[in-house]
This record gives sequence, structure tokens and C-alpha cells, in this order.
Amino acid sequence: MDPAFSFDQLQLSKRNHGLLLEALRYPITPPGMHYTLVHYDVPALDAASWQLSVGGLVEEPFELSYDELVELPSVEATVTLECAGNGRSGITPDMHSVQWHDEAVATAVWKGTHLGALLERARVKSSAVEIVFSAPDRGFEDETEQSFARSLTVQQALGGDAILAYAMNGAPIPPQHGYPVRLIVPGWYGMASVKWLMSIVAVASPFRGHHQAIAYRLRQKPEEPGEPITRILPRALMVPPGIPTFFGRHRTIDLGGCLLEGRAWSGMGPIASVEVSADGGATWDEARVERELDSPWAWCRWTYLWRPETVGEYELRCRARDEAGNSQPDVATPNLGGYCNNAAQRVAVTVRARPGE
Amino acid sequence: MDPAFSFDQLQLSKRNHGLLLEALRYPITPPGMHYTLVHYDVPALDAASWQLSVGGLVEEPFELSYDELVELPSVEATVTLECAGNGRSGITPDMHSVQWHDEAVATAVWKGTHLGALLERARVKSSAVEIVFSAPDRGFEDETEQSFARSLTVQQALGGDAILAYAMNGAPIPPQHGYPVRLIVPGWYGMASVKWLMSIVAVASPFRGHHQAIAYRLRQKPEEPGEPITRILPRALMVPPGIPTFFGRHRTIDLGGCLLEGRAWSGMGPIASVEVSADGGATWDEARVERELDSPWAWCRWTYLWRPETVGEYELRCRARDEAGNSQPDVATPNLGGYCNNAAQRVAVTVRARPGE
Repeated sequence: MDPAFSFDQLQLSKRNHGLLLEALRYPITPPGMHYTLVHYDVPALDAASWQLSVGGLVEEPFELSYDELVELPSVEATVTLECAGNGRSGITPDMHSVQWHDEAVATAVWKGTHLGALLERARVKSSAVEIVFSAPDRGFEDETEQSFARSLTVQQALGGDAILAYAMNGAPIPPQHGYPVRLIVPGWYGMASVKWLMSIVAVASPFRGHHQAIAYRLRQKPEEPGEPITRILPRALMVPPGIPTFFGRHRTIDLGGCLLEGRAWSGMGPIASVEVSADGGATWDEARVERELDSPWAWCRWTYLWRPETVGEYELRCRARDEAGNSQPDVATPNLGGYCNNAAQRVAVTVRARPGE
Repeated sequence: MDPAFSFDQLQLSKRNHGLLLEALRYPITPPGMHYTLVHYDVPALDAASWQLSVGGLVEEPFELSYDELVELPSVEATVTLECAGNGRSGITPDMHSVQWHDEAVATAVWKGTHLGALLERARVKSSAVEIVFSAPDRGFEDETEQSFARSLTVQQALGGDAILAYAMNGAPIPPQHGYPVRLIVPGWYGMASVKWLMSIVAVASPFRGHHQAIAYRLRQKPEEPGEPITRILPRALMVPPGIPTFFGRHRTIDLGGCLLEGRAWSGMGPIASVEVSADGGATWDEARVERELDSPWAWCRWTYLWRPETVGEYELRCRARDEAGNSQPDVATPNLGGYCNNAAQRVAVTVRARPGE
């Protein structure tokens, strides 16, 4: 039976929109089609008055204005970001959160300055174990007031490819994506890429904030500490072929060759292969994979020429495997938060006779 | 009791995102925050190969390339667009369509060429009664294949302020908003502003396409022909004050003065007044209205300093009246399609003691 969703689930799911899957055809997601997840409200910030403070267990704490940040050596990174809750509706449709199906993903070109270089300037003390990144996005989780904050270990922060971004696709970052400055942690699920970044603090013990210690952990029971969510698991998605019904979005194509296309990505290594099944997972064929974007952190394109032989009902699936040996399951292992469900996409398709035949 | 929504309703509501209400603070909606309603799929179009055909009952049918369109005399219009289904979840939560609450609205600056001038060049014959605007956005309504098309009467098309837009906020129109060319009909609900415009045809009898004769009509019974939906009814919305709960988005503010702000608009005339109630509609106070944008088709800003005297639970409402005498009801008259529900917005707010007091 179909799950039923509450008004509050619907409301959150409408605020936090995904990628229209037909937009998988674009290597860089066009403006406004990039998925967005806003925990509370988009804060009203202004680059002119924005200041980043870098402090805590560092030898040289400092503050930085937006103009000063933009003057630092810059780097560009083409990054596929995905929400850790992508696929949630397939494993925890009753959870009090955004009910993503499989559309919480997108790719953008971020321009900014290296986080590691900024931290070297501050000289993190050896007593520090983590770096905490905080935003002014405030709200309540149950009865407790929170603002969004996340941490990285000192090693992850200093040694990784994270950047403090101030431009997205050649323009200022739109408000809902983190204006004026967003931390971008390539290869990680989106929660690590803290929007509206205001402070960076080196701390002596592992950060216990809500979005680090409670949310974004893989747990089977509420009392478990759980495993922290970090890097993006592999996933392939296709542009649903043919044309949809308005309600239900069931697909119909005409009999004949149909070029399936999509994208595949992993935060754990380059994509090694994409496979397609047209018989609900009974048999799989290899798709052609193209590295269209010159970035280790961006999705690649795949295509597959599907030639259904008869009219009828089909179930298409696609799945990716990365070079680190991770592959997509047919069915994901559930977890309480509904995270990291990278089960292979399923698209039901009716193949009809060509009109006039 | 809360209504329950199906997976298919959730899916459509996620594809078609609204304005985050905190973005009502911006006079022009930032990139990616403009509401979007896509009936079927966003078509893959390219300005280089796009062609508009203007034909039917005209003396001089012609075709126009994108470059030729851009060379024509241009006009800019700042336009508030709203989906005719905005507010649907408040009157027909079981309808098989997008379950908008109140967020399907936004304002953009559109640049293009006057529709009327283009039709004068084609010289519409006196036998024509309507002009039909068609797009390649295809899908099924029940069992019947459709593509999106809408009509205006010859008088509406020739005499109005409609434009063929090729830029939105100074950039090419993003795919989901109608790239490369969109008809913009200022003052009308969004269904009239046909995206991905491909053809303009003058016809001898009223157009009977699905999105003209079946959808977008006010009906009490399925067998009625219904009244066509045209101009936008007045509405005021506020930025929900304070901070939200993550789930449910209930608001909390600290005791003290709270500046409420929002926007108000009508497609039937300038906004005459905005009123605010802080006691669930028992008493109303006038808000301050500012015409921030120099356009008859754009929303205006309003502000109201709310001074709750005690901690406790409040229900805020706001409502607009236009100079044509239209005002917002407390409760809308239902109709089968769930259209045009402009009932006054309600925002529940907890006022708490200031922290530390």
C-alpha cells in the first residue's frame, strides 16, 4: 500500500526541492534546479556586513570580511552534492523529515578559497581535535533551540579539498544555497557543506551539536551512538524516458530504440561502471560512461540504448559501482534516520505501439 | 484532523516548488526561489534551433528565430506570478495535483517583446476569435495525451501587456521557467504565461484544449462548463516571524516589538490596503504599504510593528484589498479544482519571555 504523508511532511518536502530528474541531462545544474535543504529559515545576510571569525584553539585567531576573503588565492571545484536523506521515502516514509525520493542531488561549480590554507594561517594548536563550522540558521528540534553547526576532524579540515565558497556557477551564491559564504566539502553528503558560514572554531573534544551527534548518524536503535555519515555512496540516476502522466508520473514510450541517459557519482572514488536492467533487475547490461566534467568530485554521464522488443510493461533500473568497490544495493538496509538509501532507481515504463502502427 | 497525502501528491509537490516565505523579504525573487509549476517534463530546447511560428487566421504568417526575436523592440516588465492552485491544500487536499499551501508566488523582471506588436505584424483576420499559444511539454491526463496550450481572446492578446520574454532577471530564462521563450501575461495567474512557447495560432472558435476547457476552471460539479480562471485575486503574505520548529514549522518569538513584513498583490488593481490581525481575526490593524517596485504588475511591500503584551499563543493573519474593491476572505469558497483560494494567511506564533528574563 502507498504510504500516507502528513501535512507537515508535505510542507517540508515542498520547501526543500530536488532536481527535476530530466535536468540530469545538464552537466552543471541550471540556476534554481540545484536541490536545496534548509533546516530552519534562510537567514537574511549581507556580504557587506558579513564577517567570518576563525578562533578557538588556534595561535592566531582572526576575522575576515567578505572582501578580504575574495582577495585570497582562489580555487574552483565542480562538485556533485547530495542530501544524506536522499531516498528516505523508500525506507522511512513515516520519519518527521523531508521525504526525498531520489532527487536530492545536483552539480555546481563553486569558487572560493581553500579551507586548509586559512587554517594554516590561524595555526591550529596541537590540543585541537576538531574544527566546528557554525551558521546563524536557527530553530527548534523538539523543545531545544539549535543553530546549525557541523565539525570536521583537524585532519579532514587541514588535509582535504574543502573550500570556503563565495560564488556558485559564476554568480554570488543564492540565499538558499548559503549566501554569502558556504563551506563546500567535496565528496561528502551535503550536511557537511555548511551554508551561511559565520564562524570556524578549533575545539579540544569531539563536537556534540545536534546536527553532528544526533542527526546525520546511522542507527538501528535510538540509544545507539550511531555511525557518523560522511562520504557519498555511489548512485546512478536516469532521466525518466518518454512522457509522463500528470498524476503519478508513470512513463510511456513508443516501441523502438530509446536512448537512456543519466548521471552517476560516488564520494568514495571514480565511477567504475553503470549497469542498466530493463527487466526489473533479472538481467543487467553495461552502460557507456563518459567523464564529461574534469573533476574528481563531479558526476559522470552515462548512456544506454534500450531496444524493447515488444509493447508492454517494463521496469527499468540503473546502478553504479565505484573504483573503491562500492556498489548500489537493490534494497537498502533501513536505519532510523532514513539516511544513505542508495538502492537502485526504478522507473516503470509502458512501451506502446508507435502511433499510427 | 490533518489530511493525509499520497506518494503521488508528495512527488508532484516536490517537483513543483514554491517560494520559501522568508524570501518575501526580497522585492525581486532571487534565482531558484521563484515558484515553478511544470505540468509534464521540462523539454530539452535550444535557443539556436528554436523557432516560433505565428500562423492560423492571419494575413502574414511568419516564423521567427531566437536571434530575430531578440532584435525586435524590447520591453521589461516586473511581474508577480502566482499559480492558480496556490492555497489548494486548504480547500481540496485530496485533489490529484500539486498541494500548494500559500507559497506558489514570486516576482521577476522579464524582458522581451510585445505580443501585441508581433500580432499586428501578422495581421490577425477578423474571423479569428482567439489566439492559441502552444508548448512542447507533453504528457497524459487520464488516458489522453496532451501538450500544454492556452488561449487568449484576440482582444486580450492584442490589447494587453503580454510579452514574449527571452530573459528573466537579466539572464536567459532557466529551463524550468520556460527557456528559451515564455509568454508572460501580467496580472493573470501563471497558467496563462505559457512556457517553452513554440507556436501562436489565430483560430475561429474558442480553444477547447485540456488546459483551457477542462483544467483551470472554477466548477462546483464536474458536468458544469465552469468559469475560466483569469486574473490574480488579491493576497497578502507575511514572512513568518521568529524561528521555526524543524518539523511543523511552528514559530516562536521573544516578547517585545516584532516587525512583521510581507508582500501583497492583486492582478485586478493596485493594492489599497493590507491589514494584520494578531488575535485570529477578531480585530484588524492597518499595515504600512510601500510601492517598492515601479510596476503595476508587481507586489508591494508591507510592514506592521506587532507588540504582543504577554507571552502565550497567538494567531497572526494578514489580508489585502485592492482598489477594484476585491478583498481576501477568511475562508475561501471551495471549487472542484482547488483554484483561487486566497483565504487570509494564518501563522501560529508562540511568544516566549526573553531568554534570561
